[in-house]
Amino acid sequence: MQRDGDVFILDLGADENRFHPDRLAAINASLDEVEAFDGPKALVTSATGKFFSNGLDTDWLGEHPDQWQTYVADVEALLARVLVFPAPTVAAVQGHNFGAGAMLALAHDFRIMRADRGYFCLPEVDLGLPFTAGMAALVQGRLEKQTAHEAMTTGRRYGGADAAAARIVDAVADEGKVLAAAVELARPLAGKPAETLGTIKSRMYAEVVRALRDGA
Amino acid sequence: MQRDGDVFILDLGADENRFHPDRLAAINASLDEVEAFDGPKALVTSATGKFFSNGLDTDWLGEHPDQWQTYVADVEALLARVLVFPAPTVAAVQGHNFGAGAMLALAHDFRIMRADRGYFCLPEVDLGLPFTAGMAALVQGRLEKQTAHEAMTTGRRYGGADAAAARIVDAVADEGKVLAAAVELARPLAGKPAETLGTIKSRMYAEVVRALRDGA
Amino acid sequence: MQRDGDVFILDLGADENRFHPDRLAAINASLDEVEAFDGPKALVTSATGKFFSNGLDTDWLGEHPDQWQTYVADVEALLARVLVFPAPTVAAVQGHNFGAGAMLALAHDFRIMRADRGYFCLPEVDLGLPFTAGMAALVQGRLEKQTAHEAMTTGRRYGGADAAAARIVDAVADEGKVLAAAVELARPLAGKPAETLGTIKSRMYAEVVRALRDGA
Repeated sequence: MQRDGDVFILDLGADENRFHPDRLAAINASLDEVEAFDGPKALVTSATGKFFSNGLDTDWLGEHPDQWQTYVADVEALLARVLVFPAPTVAAVQGHNFGAGAMLALAHDFRIMRADRGYFCLPEVDLGLPFTAGMAALVQGRLEKQTAHEAMTTGRRYGGADAAAARIVDAVADEGKVLAAAVELARPLAGKPAETLGTIKSRMYAEVVRALRDGA
Repeated sequence: MQRDGDVFILDLGADENRFHPDRLAAINASLDEVEAFDGPKALVTSATGKFFSNGLDTDWLGEHPDQWQTYVADVEALLARVLVFPAPTVAAVQGHNFGAGAMLALAHDFRIMRADRGYFCLPEVDLGLPFTAGMAALVQGRLEKQTAHEAMTTGRRYGGADAAAARIVDAVADEGKVLAAAVELARPLAGKPAETLGTIKSRMYAEVVRALRDGA
Repeated sequence: MQRDGDVFILDLGADENRFHPDRLAAINASLDEVEAFDGPKALVTSATGKFFSNGLDTDWLGEHPDQWQTYVADVEALLARVLVFPAPTVAAVQGHNFGAGAMLALAHDFRIMRADRGYFCLPEVDLGLPFTAGMAALVQGRLEKQTAHEAMTTGRRYGGADAAAARIVDAVADEGKVLAAAVELARPLAGKPAETLGTIKSRMYAEVVRALRDGA
């Protein structure tokens, strides 16, 4: 795992970065590393290429239909973990950000999105695949009311400027500057007391975490 | 019930369009028709004249004081039904929109309001008539926090521009163009899978629906 | 307690205005007086000097460590009382507004903040002092989602303009005009029926009040 001073940089990969079980395990191992680190720290999650993450690994699911329930529970557990992670977190959304990949970005404290290309999109309604109760609670817990409603019921694709206007992301950055902007946002937060921060987030999102961990 | 392509147009009427029991029955019959229709569909609710709806039928209630509880329960059931309706819904608010009439508009996915005339207003505080728990949950579930607070505790009358600025409505349109704007907003959404959309909305607003159906 | 027509003006004091038990008792006595008053009324809470309120009285707590739990419960009870107070309430935030002092301002219906000086800040994360469940519910119940998240997880200090942009306060006013602006905002609301207003706020914030009164 790379570091830039106090900022740990989790790299999701250079392809569609869907949540194959191996990738989930790798992300969790990185989170373990950050969580175990004793000292000032912040986490930036990024990727390279056209995609931040395209979400659920539908190919793998097609081959393992019997594991749908445990797989979705694993994804929801990751979302809950990031949501209340005991360190400041920033998503550097340099590319397309769809479905559970968009939810992973929403689970971070802050989001920087590439200005000129790439979409934030929750395509579940068009896929005939309703959000689990936990995923619905996550999106509704992080977005303003009518923004959550539009995103979840229409599958609208938000470009960077639209996503910033709707407060889905906190800021946009030019191509090639997304990661740097995320690191600069995260760096001054690295000194926050980790345990306190984890407790604050856990209390703020107790209901969301419960819904994500209960499955649906 | 009129249709414009895939868009069903529910007409509330040409007077104050208060929720007389007969009007509630007519609205529910129209919703039944849309719900039973198998194919691409969206619902636009509109009216003609000075009012979209003035809400509870206080004249009828004055004549039937013993039926207050069941009547309010019927109105709340309608609000819950529209809130999680298994099709895209748009309110074409061409005129005054008060009390439970305003809540009916808020239960739709989107709202277009006439720009130059007509008010959105929750006058309950001035009438000495507190919101039921379900109605409070509906308003708070659809409006931003301080907007809900102001609307519910002061009875402020929002004209079109103010309502759009406060995100009470999604857009405004000129006189005579409100219905057309609502239909154009609804039309591209008509292809969304109805059952999935209903499930998504039901999960998003499970608590609001529970509060509306429990009565108060 | 001073009055300006129908508006009662609660003066928090001229120092840091931390919540010493004696100050809590004095505030509650003033609220009793307003609550008992039968007639048009509104409440403006203000202070003089550099501070609106700096929150918990850490000096007193240092001398009475055994009373931490009952003291915090008393502060939470005050926040719950103001949140659902049966009269319109406006905070005239003329100076620094930190921690539980900021929460007291958030418990009011509206807030006017001095434009050019003074900060709104929740420093809990930096103090290693997580919000109680009730305090978290209060802040999250009054601020937009990402605003609450940023304020609670970063301890950001918001000046007047930033606080207004984030909708933490409803408006700003120039030095020396904050109290007058708050009184002018409160005055036309003084005629709202007190009992109805109290019931409306109690239903809107039933969960927040429960969390504040349960302690944590």
